[in-house]
Amino acid sequence: MHNEGGVSVMNIEEVMPLLQEKKLAALRSNFEQMHPADIAALFSELIEQRAVSDTSLILIYRVIAKETAAEAFTYMDPSVQETLINSFSDRELSEVIDELYIDDAVDMIEEMPANVVSRILKNADSETRSQINNILKYPEDSAGSIMTTEFVYFRKGKTIAECFERIRSVGIMKETIYTCYVTDQRKLIGAVNLLEMITAEPATLIEDIAESNIITVNTLDDKESVAKTLSKYDLHAIPVVDNEERIVGIVTFDDAIDVIEEENTEDFSKMAAVAPLDESYFKTTVWHHARSRLPWLLFLMLSATLTGFVISRYETAFEKLAILIAFMPMIMGTAGNSGSQSSTLIIRGMAVDEIHLRDFFKVLWKEFRVALICGAVLAVVNGLRIYYFEQAGLLVSLTVGLSIVGVVILAKIVGSMLPMFAKKVHLDPAIMATPMISTILDTCSLLLYFTLATAILHV
Amino acid sequence: MHNEGGVSVMNIEEVMPLLQEKKLAALRSNFEQMHPADIAALFSELIEQRAVSDTSLILIYRVIAKETAAEAFTYMDPSVQETLINSFSDRELSEVIDELYIDDAVDMIEEMPANVVSRILKNADSETRSQINNILKYPEDSAGSIMTTEFVYFRKGKTIAECFERIRSVGIMKETIYTCYVTDQRKLIGAVNLLEMITAEPATLIEDIAESNIITVNTLDDKESVAKTLSKYDLHAIPVVDNEERIVGIVTFDDAIDVIEEENTEDFSKMAAVAPLDESYFKTTVWHHARSRLPWLLFLMLSATLTGFVISRYETAFEKLAILIAFMPMIMGTAGNSGSQSSTLIIRGMAVDEIHLRDFFKVLWKEFRVALICGAVLAVVNGLRIYYFEQAGLLVSLTVGLSIVGVVILAKIVGSMLPMFAKKVHLDPAIMATPMISTILDTCSLLLYFTLATAILHV
Repeated sequence: MHNEGGVSVMNIEEVMPLLQEKKLAALRSNFEQMHPADIAALFSELIEQRAVSDTSLILIYRVIAKETAAEAFTYMDPSVQETLINSFSDRELSEVIDELYIDDAVDMIEEMPANVVSRILKNADSETRSQINNILKYPEDSAGSIMTTEFVYFRKGKTIAECFERIRSVGIMKETIYTCYVTDQRKLIGAVNLLEMITAEPATLIEDIAESNIITVNTLDDKESVAKTLSKYDLHAIPVVDNEERIVGIVTFDDAIDVIEEENTEDFSKMAAVAPLDESYFKTTVWHHARSRLPWLLFLMLSATLTGFVISRYETAFEKLAILIAFMPMIMGTAGNSGSQSSTLIIRGMAVDEIHLRDFFKVLWKEFRVALICGAVLAVVNGLRIYYFEQAGLLVSLTVGLSIVGVVILAKIVGSMLPMFAKKVHLDPAIMATPMISTILDTCSLLLYFTLATAILHV
Repeated sequence: MHNEGGVSVMNIEEVMPLLQEKKLAALRSNFEQMHPADIAALFSELIEQRAVSDTSLILIYRVIAKETAAEAFTYMDPSVQETLINSFSDRELSEVIDELYIDDAVDMIEEMPANVVSRILKNADSETRSQINNILKYPEDSAGSIMTTEFVYFRKGKTIAECFERIRSVGIMKETIYTCYVTDQRKLIGAVNLLEMITAEPATLIEDIAESNIITVNTLDDKESVAKTLSKYDLHAIPVVDNEERIVGIVTFDDAIDVIEEENTEDFSKMAAVAPLDESYFKTTVWHHARSRLPWLLFLMLSATLTGFVISRYETAFEKLAILIAFMPMIMGTAGNSGSQSSTLIIRGMAVDEIHLRDFFKVLWKEFRVALICGAVLAVVNGLRIYYFEQAGLLVSLTVGLSIVGVVILAKIVGSMLPMFAKKVHLDPAIMATPMISTILDTCSLLLYFTLATAILHV
């Protein structure tokens, strides 16, 4: 047992001796001082480092106090959950399912093989089973698929005192009671927060203190937009309604945080020309990694042939003046880097809803001016460098300098416009990131460079 | 007034006629149906599009019901807030400050020029002023700087009934009451959630139902790690303690979401070789944009000279076989793209705490195998393409094919190792992203390509 940033945790080196010496009481009391999330992390490590067998793992799990164990289970990786479920007795399994919130149960089920799923559903009580099936029917990435059905609602016409009675009897099993909902024939008509209930007179009718102007999302809304709405309005939970305005679930802030982080990871992947992975880095197999990276690599490699054609066309020019070839990587690199700066900022700006399609010309004008400044500075620095240090001659220095101004302007315009164009035609703007932009710019920048060289140097 | 995704909003086109025809009652009732966050967005738009003068802006603000107006104020951009403050009477200013949560007030103050700050502090009551000053003393990016001091705590020895009395009298002004804290001589000894209080006997002592094993952060902890801790343990709020374990504030989930999004934006910027911006895209001036992009562009441009040297050294080789030059962009591009795939996945994996330094060899081994598969497929496809379609001859096709396998392996190893190396020497891994990686790989991949060409083709 040791302390990590104010939190008591055990690591593998501390668990193993206690386990080998069968000091189960000490083990149990140590687990009791740990946060369930840290217990879950320890289990992952035990499996990853192959420190214990599957049979030992279930023994350790049984040492933990029942309620803590069930809570730790909700934080575990699907692979650890699967290992444990395979060793669980039916009774243990149904105890754990009872402890899970419905949305956590659904998350888990979505990761399990079919035989495990049917065992889980068999051991769930009928109400839980029908709730799970209900959520499972919503499309992937929809609000319905991430919501929980465990919220508290009051029927119109109840008094505050009656509502508190209801919270006392059903609240303990709900994911949050801090915002409760008021319904009229299942239709959502209001939301009330617990603080207002505490400070109101017990005889007041609930609808009289409820806020009727509520932000809701539809079951079929994209989960990313749900997370954004929750974050925009600083909400603790957001009610999910069906097409008849009936409340069917809520999405809570912790799930919204997970969605935001997932979407960011997906954007990072796409922007590096990797098809988004379903699993984390280590859990994805080598074959899967290769498969998610190959299509883009192939496409980009074949696109680069175009640049080769441009070079072949100007073959005679650079045979006369071989020094021109030595500057090619620098010109292409500067174009790619300038372009990816712009495309990344625009992609991110659109992802956080700062930049919209209607800002097209505003962005264009801004990037053009930034490009002028950047291009001028780079051209001067580089022109002087090759004139003085590489003694390339005035005309060659001029050619390279002018090319740089040109490619930076071109790059910033292409880099900022393509992501917006992608959005316009309903593609994900994130694909217009560095790899794509620099492949396109390689050809354009070489064309510009060779054209200028032909004109200025008459090669 | 119209409906956007279930929420009632007004846009500029709807506000202006009401304003011009002085239909203030209609305006007021429309505002009353809008969420404060949407009112704030409308104000930003009014200013951005220069639809109204500053004097008209304050007139519109005064039309809104007082409490709604103050709440909308907390959602506004600093520049809108500044415009309004400059038009506020002292009384209006102090009313708004009274409505702000302390952490929102501090956020606002940090963005204001000195004269506005002193006017704000002058018009705050003395308790608010001292709380603001208290938070302002914490270093930027620390837990202390983003916490709020508005939380509810109970002294040890109080009964639940007494605690509810306290919530009723002070709770309404606090940012959250859903988790309250128990102190003993200001030291934090427990946390209790409201649901447990509601379901407990009124005569119970608060410390008897409080959880004593609490996750806390220190005032000086980095705000990013605070947000991660909150998300890891699914907490609604996390208490911030000083070095004597006394609770001085809390950080709530909505601030954590903002921190996560800010850090992600920073990572995106860094990975595109842009120095992170303090402001959003549009609020950053052209000069600032240029200044944040130039240093990296300059550095990368000058580094690309190295690639030029490599080319110069092999000048004689490609003069004999000009077709070799045409494949240069494709080889360099494939290297850059393969490398940035790996570096991005590793950078992201480290950012979300999945990949640690101790995983160095695990990553190396995984990337090596992925590279073998990717490299082989790309080499075969490309070798066949140039053999059959460009009729480049067997030896040239072989050279290009072998080079591709080589550069993909090199790229994936360099791309995955450099971010980990950066972390090891306490640099931000995000700088080892595409621009840096591809600049480094340009040189290495050309060296490999020319070496192979020399060996196989005897040029």
